[in-house]
Amino acid sequence: MEPLESLFRPRSVAVVGASRNPKKLGHVILKNILEGGFEGDIIPVNPKADEILGLKAYDIDSMPRTDTAVISIPAKYVPEAIEKLGKKGVKSAIVISSGFAEVGNVDLQRSLVKAARKHGMRVLGPNCAGLINAFHKYYPTFEVRVKPGKAAFVTQSGALGGAVLMELYSLDKGLGVFVSYGNAADVNEADLIEYLKEREELDAIAFYIEGLHEGRRFVEALKGAKNVYVLKGGKTEAGSKAASSHTASLSGDRAMFRSIVGAYARILNDTRELFLAIDAMNYGLKRVRRVAILTNSGGPGVLAADELDKLGLELPDLSSYDRSFLPPFASRRNPIDMAAGADYDVIYKSMKVLNEAPEVDGILFIFVPPIHIPAENAVKAIIDAEPKKPVVAVLMGGSFVKNARVMLEKHGIPVVSHPEDGAKLISLGLSP
Amino acid sequence: MEPLESLFRPRSVAVVGASRNPKKLGHVILKNILEGGFEGDIIPVNPKADEILGLKAYDIDSMPRTDTAVISIPAKYVPEAIEKLGKKGVKSAIVISSGFAEVGNVDLQRSLVKAARKHGMRVLGPNCAGLINAFHKYYPTFEVRVKPGKAAFVTQSGALGGAVLMELYSLDKGLGVFVSYGNAADVNEADLIEYLKEREELDAIAFYIEGLHEGRRFVEALKGAKNVYVLKGGKTEAGSKAASSHTASLSGDRAMFRSIVGAYARILNDTRELFLAIDAMNYGLKRVRRVAILTNSGGPGVLAADELDKLGLELPDLSSYDRSFLPPFASRRNPIDMAAGADYDVIYKSMKVLNEAPEVDGILFIFVPPIHIPAENAVKAIIDAEPKKPVVAVLMGGSFVKNARVMLEKHGIPVVSHPEDGAKLISLGLSP
Repeated sequence: MEPLESLFRPRSVAVVGASRNPKKLGHVILKNILEGGFEGDIIPVNPKADEILGLKAYDIDSMPRTDTAVISIPAKYVPEAIEKLGKKGVKSAIVISSGFAEVGNVDLQRSLVKAARKHGMRVLGPNCAGLINAFHKYYPTFEVRVKPGKAAFVTQSGALGGAVLMELYSLDKGLGVFVSYGNAADVNEADLIEYLKEREELDAIAFYIEGLHEGRRFVEALKGAKNVYVLKGGKTEAGSKAASSHTASLSGDRAMFRSIVGAYARILNDTRELFLAIDAMNYGLKRVRRVAILTNSGGPGVLAADELDKLGLELPDLSSYDRSFLPPFASRRNPIDMAAGADYDVIYKSMKVLNEAPEVDGILFIFVPPIHIPAENAVKAIIDAEPKKPVVAVLMGGSFVKNARVMLEKHGIPVVSHPEDGAKLISLGLSP
Repeated sequence: MEPLESLFRPRSVAVVGASRNPKKLGHVILKNILEGGFEGDIIPVNPKADEILGLKAYDIDSMPRTDTAVISIPAKYVPEAIEKLGKKGVKSAIVISSGFAEVGNVDLQRSLVKAARKHGMRVLGPNCAGLINAFHKYYPTFEVRVKPGKAAFVTQSGALGGAVLMELYSLDKGLGVFVSYGNAADVNEADLIEYLKEREELDAIAFYIEGLHEGRRFVEALKGAKNVYVLKGGKTEAGSKAASSHTASLSGDRAMFRSIVGAYARILNDTRELFLAIDAMNYGLKRVRRVAILTNSGGPGVLAADELDKLGLELPDLSSYDRSFLPPFASRRNPIDMAAGADYDVIYKSMKVLNEAPEVDGILFIFVPPIHIPAENAVKAIIDAEPKKPVVAVLMGGSFVKNARVMLEKHGIPVVSHPEDGAKLISLGLSP
């Protein structure tokens, strides 16, 4: 088994530093692997315990050989543990432990890498939050376990990773692959994109990067990758200084990063766009060029049109279509403003027209519930019309549109709360 | 009583078209005025009812004179009603009814205006959602009644107004003044800014505008106004076309709008910034120039620094301060990265230092709860340190930071979910 393959899809895993104490990371990680439904062997490694969470525990010398290991023990013991695992033929390790280069212990980190290289092992971390591969039911991380999804998120900042996972969990959204690569002592973003872009189960990958460890290799790998989104930390003078304190990353020439990486990847501007990209990936949203806005409310329709225009998407003229079912003064161009009285019938018929309109690739549906038309009725019309094209819905009105949101999401239609977010989301669709 | 004053602060109000039928707007509006706690006389006007919601009802001929009226009857009867009200000495009216210029009935709208002018009445609308003046406990609108706040929002799009009110309601946030001015047949954004900028209870006003009805007067009035935020619909070619269909507004030269209006008002870029401006107003957030970022998480700190830099705020160097209480490798510059282990003690001491640092005007606090440090502990440190400067908090992690968010908000500290939103919010503070 290739080392990187063993990191993401092992048949067996040892948790070095597994603990009976629920406050220890070694406990939380073991529990996540167990409860995540990992189907291979799980070996807790702790010289002082016989059994942890119902599994027989070993010390590191007597443990059976595994494909990979997750290590959460004090930093100073890590190189020796790597040495012992390597000798046994363990192919890779996730080093959760902190206390290496990020606090000045550069030599200790070097010994870790040296031990790994000696045995041909690959190491993720140290000082990282671990990873998730939901496609393999594998959750070697101390972060909250989100439900499976199709999106992949790879992050240099563990804290941002944790924040994203907690927010996704709270929104009942999922993730397919998550990687926190911490100090990147060995495995870095170039290795990760080379490995992940070949995974058939992944259509796209989002990265948070402060600085590239092997810029040339990363860009080369990007060239063959289909859908890569990159959020860059350190885009400005101040942010760049902050990044150099944080991960000792040279964020490098910022304009150059944008132009070179931007040639092969979609550049995300902020955390909000990162979440939208995750939505696009999870819903398998297809890329579109010509968008029809179907709205019951003028102002939000105008704001969405503004944003689509800014993003370079087209709003084809739709005035030639039969829309006798619209009220006489409703705007028939694009946005199609059905006006506040639009109910199930008008929305259903409008959607049917857009289904067939050849100049429309995708539909941005915007709805603000007027006082006597519940949002549930409106979204039922969308679902019943069986959209033949990518649809993104903007449902405005907080708790007043909560049920309607769930209805659409169940039918595979992503929902956002603001018109500009709708425009951004539909602009982030994936190429086939 | 001046007509505009009677529109916002009447001593008595007639609801023309009041109804016993809870599905009618005339019922909802009457109920909102009643339940909102209006302290003046409330007169339901309906020729077919004796009593509505416990109040004696009148027909329009026999009703006692009131300062103002809210009208929700079929469009064709509105000019006559205005005529009768004007004769009685009613000073102003909110015309909720639609069916005027927005559906091509330009002549009917002209008769309405003519009748009002004849009697020196001022009219808000028609085709509007009404207004809210929480300072006067006055809620003549069919929209959801949000709790009182200090923010003011004036909107040309009723649907956007409704969407904003529903979202604020769902977030348990408030509003002091809300105005939907619909077709602007009489009262337009120039009248509104002239009137509202003189109100001592208002520190700031946010506008959603698609096109100016009296551009020169509006800009003149802006010059004397302290804090005005403007979200413009129709900023692009596509949006501008959409706006002209929507409100028949000439959104005019877009670059010129931005440069002229932008000279005296803060231009908001999207709906999200509109909500942030409403937060800034509600919390009375003061304007700052030099910001310290205090964070327990590097990546989000970097992203906030990027955004502050983009917005033109300064991040003063803070490396000279005593921060012996920080871990040795924590970044001491700005962002001050306390690292993931930062607990109550470290956060409290850091805040105390920032309280006294003369080169810091405001503080952006960023917290992502690590696995064993609850967000409640972190925000308690902020509260206990008794901030002497404007603080904006970014709490990341969805439901994991829900209680902490409430704690801070109760202490007058606004909270957002993403680092870039935090930077934007602190950039939207009010001048004194």
